[in-house]
Amino acid sequence: MSTTQVRPTPARTKTKGYAAQSATSALAPFSFARREPLPGDVQIDILYCGVCHSDLHTVRNEWKNSVYPVVPGHEIIGRVTAVGDEVTRFKPGDLAGVGCIVDSDRTCPNCRAGLEQLCDSGFTGTYNSPDKHLGGMTLGGYSKTIVVDQDFVLDIREKHNLAGVAPLLCAGITTYSPLRHWKVGKGQKVGIVGLGGLGHMGVKLAAAMGAHVVLFTTSPGKKEDARRLGAHEVVISKNQNEMGKHANSFDFILDTVSAEHDLNSYLALVKADGTMVLVGAPENPPVVEPFSLIVKRRQLAGSLIGGIAETQEMLDFCAERGITSDVEIISMDKINEAYERMLRSDVKYRFVIDMATL
Amino acid sequence: MSTTQVRPTPARTKTKGYAAQSATSALAPFSFARREPLPGDVQIDILYCGVCHSDLHTVRNEWKNSVYPVVPGHEIIGRVTAVGDEVTRFKPGDLAGVGCIVDSDRTCPNCRAGLEQLCDSGFTGTYNSPDKHLGGMTLGGYSKTIVVDQDFVLDIREKHNLAGVAPLLCAGITTYSPLRHWKVGKGQKVGIVGLGGLGHMGVKLAAAMGAHVVLFTTSPGKKEDARRLGAHEVVISKNQNEMGKHANSFDFILDTVSAEHDLNSYLALVKADGTMVLVGAPENPPVVEPFSLIVKRRQLAGSLIGGIAETQEMLDFCAERGITSDVEIISMDKINEAYERMLRSDVKYRFVIDMATL
Repeated sequence: MSTTQVRPTPARTKTKGYAAQSATSALAPFSFARREPLPGDVQIDILYCGVCHSDLHTVRNEWKNSVYPVVPGHEIIGRVTAVGDEVTRFKPGDLAGVGCIVDSDRTCPNCRAGLEQLCDSGFTGTYNSPDKHLGGMTLGGYSKTIVVDQDFVLDIREKHNLAGVAPLLCAGITTYSPLRHWKVGKGQKVGIVGLGGLGHMGVKLAAAMGAHVVLFTTSPGKKEDARRLGAHEVVISKNQNEMGKHANSFDFILDTVSAEHDLNSYLALVKADGTMVLVGAPENPPVVEPFSLIVKRRQLAGSLIGGIAETQEMLDFCAERGITSDVEIISMDKINEAYERMLRSDVKYRFVIDMATL
Repeated sequence: MSTTQVRPTPARTKTKGYAAQSATSALAPFSFARREPLPGDVQIDILYCGVCHSDLHTVRNEWKNSVYPVVPGHEIIGRVTAVGDEVTRFKPGDLAGVGCIVDSDRTCPNCRAGLEQLCDSGFTGTYNSPDKHLGGMTLGGYSKTIVVDQDFVLDIREKHNLAGVAPLLCAGITTYSPLRHWKVGKGQKVGIVGLGGLGHMGVKLAAAMGAHVVLFTTSPGKKEDARRLGAHEVVISKNQNEMGKHANSFDFILDTVSAEHDLNSYLALVKADGTMVLVGAPENPPVVEPFSLIVKRRQLAGSLIGGIAETQEMLDFCAERGITSDVEIISMDKINEAYERMLRSDVKYRFVIDMATL
C-alpha cells in the first residue's frame, strides 16, 4: 500500500478531454485540471480508451447519479510520463493501464482480501466518483492524461495490440472475475449470454480456461463469429426447442445482457448446484421464479468488475495467450456517433478511442 | 441400495385415511389400498403426521399439478409392523420416519451423491407422485399405514416426543439442509426470515450450529417467542430503520416466507460474497434488482428439502441435542379447521395429527 497522504490543495496541470455537460448534451471538447503527481502517483499519457456501455449510461444519467461535467472512460492504456517519489512499480516510458477503480479505503476486509470492487466504503470510480484530491468528481479516460495512485495502475505486458488491450480493463475483468471465482475450467459446460463487448470477452476467456462454451444469442447472424471467437456451440435463445435441449446441463452461465430478457429460461438450463451470474443490469429488474432456484438448488449471483490483483492476473493471462478484445478504433470526434451505433449493437465488439486524435 | 424389482401387480391391503376428492372439497375419510411389502419394503403403522403448507397447496391444487384423490402428509412417524425379506435396517416394533421422498432413480449423478431431492428423473414424492407399484398416484401420511422402500425410511433415535419429531421430516430438513450446505456455524451472523413452521426450525437449528441468529418477522408479538426458540436478535422487518442497521452484515439469510415480500430489502443486508436462500415460493414470483446481487457479489439461491442421508444426519443431530418442533397436536377430524388456522398463522408452530384419532 502507498503511504500517500490526502493533500488538500495539490498542484494542478491542465489537460484536455471530451465531456458531457448535461444528460442531454453530446460529448464535446473540454479543458480541465489533473493533479500533479503526489509521491505515490503515476502520471499517464493516454494512448487508447475503450468505450463501455457504462460510459453512455453515465453521460445520459441513466443511473440517476451523474454529476456534470462527466468525462467518461475507464478502459485506459497509456504511457507513463512522470511518477512520484515513492513510486517503485513504474517509471517514465512504461506502458500502464487504468480500469474502473482509482482508489478504495484499502483497510476494510474486502480491500484487504484484494476485493477493492467490493470495498465497504465504496471504491473511487475512475469517473463520476468524489475526487479526494481535487474535490468535485473524478474525470475519466476520454482525455489526454490521467494521474492515478500506483496501487491502482496495471502493468501491461502485451506491447503490440494496445487498442485491443484497453477493453480488458473493464469488459475483460468483468467476465474473467466471475469465471475464475466460480472456478470455470476443463470438463465444464459454460454458457455465455449475449455477444457484445462483455460477451465476446466471456467467450474468449471461458474457452481459454478450457470449458465447453455455448454462446446464447438472439441473432442467427452472430453464429459464425461466435465460433471464430471460441464458442463450441451457439444457441438461438428465441428458439424454445434449441433451448430445451440444454435443460439442466450447464455448470455455469454468465449473463452479459443488459436488455430486458427472461432469466428463468436460462436458469432452467443450469444443472443442480450450478450458478448463473449477472454482470449486466436491465433497467426494469427481472422476475425470478423461486422454483427455478429451489428445485435444483441453483444459485443466481451478481459480479462486479474485479479487484486490482485479479485485474493484473487477467491481463497477464491474456498476454500469455494472445487474447485481446476485437475492437473498432475511432477518433475522438466520432464518439457521439459511436454511442448511437453501440445502442444498435453495431460494433464488433468494442469501440476504442485513439487518443492521438484528440 | 435395495434390489427390489418393480412388480406389476403386488398384493394389496386396505387402509384408511383422509383425502380431498377435488380442489374445492374438504378432506374427508377415505379407504384405499397399500401394497403388501415387497422384499425391500418396510410397512409402518403411522403414529403422527405433521401438517405442512405443501399439503394445503396440493389439496387445493394451488400448484396446478394435483391428481385427485389427494391423501397428503409427508412428515410421518410410525412403528414398523412388517418388513420384506431383504430388509436389514428395520424390524417390526422399530420406530421409523418417512419424509417427502419415497423413491428416486438412484442412478443419476445427484442420487449417487445422496441428493435424491435433486434426482434427474424427479424423485417420487410421498404423495401426488406417480406410484410405480400400484399405478395412480402415491398417497401420503394422513392415513393409518404406509409401505416404503427401506432406502427411504429414516431411523428415529428420539423415543419420547414423537409428535415433535414428525415435522423434522420436512420443516426440519428443509431448513437444516441449506444451513449445512452453505456451512453455517460459529462466528457467523445468520438471518431467518419468518417465524412459522419452517422459520422456528431454522432458528433452533442455526442457533444449535453456533451461529448468531437474527429472526426477521413482521409481528412484534413474536419477539419473545423467537428469543425463547434461540434467536439472539429479533428485527421487525417493516421497520426500515431497524433493517438499515443490519446492512451488509449477514453471512447467510434463510428466507422461509411464502407470502409476497420484497427480497431486495433482505439482499441489502447480506455482506459481500454472502448468500440468501429461498425455501418458500410466493405465488407471484419476486422481482430481483440485479444491482442487489452485483454490487456485493451476493448470491440468491433456492433449496429443496434434503437427501435421505442428510435427513438421517439431521434427525441424529436433533436427537443428540433434544431439538424437536414446537407442535400442536390435533385429531384427524380437525384437519380442515387446522388448514384455516394455518392460513392465519394461528399455530405455534406446526400442527401434528395424532393418527390414533383416525
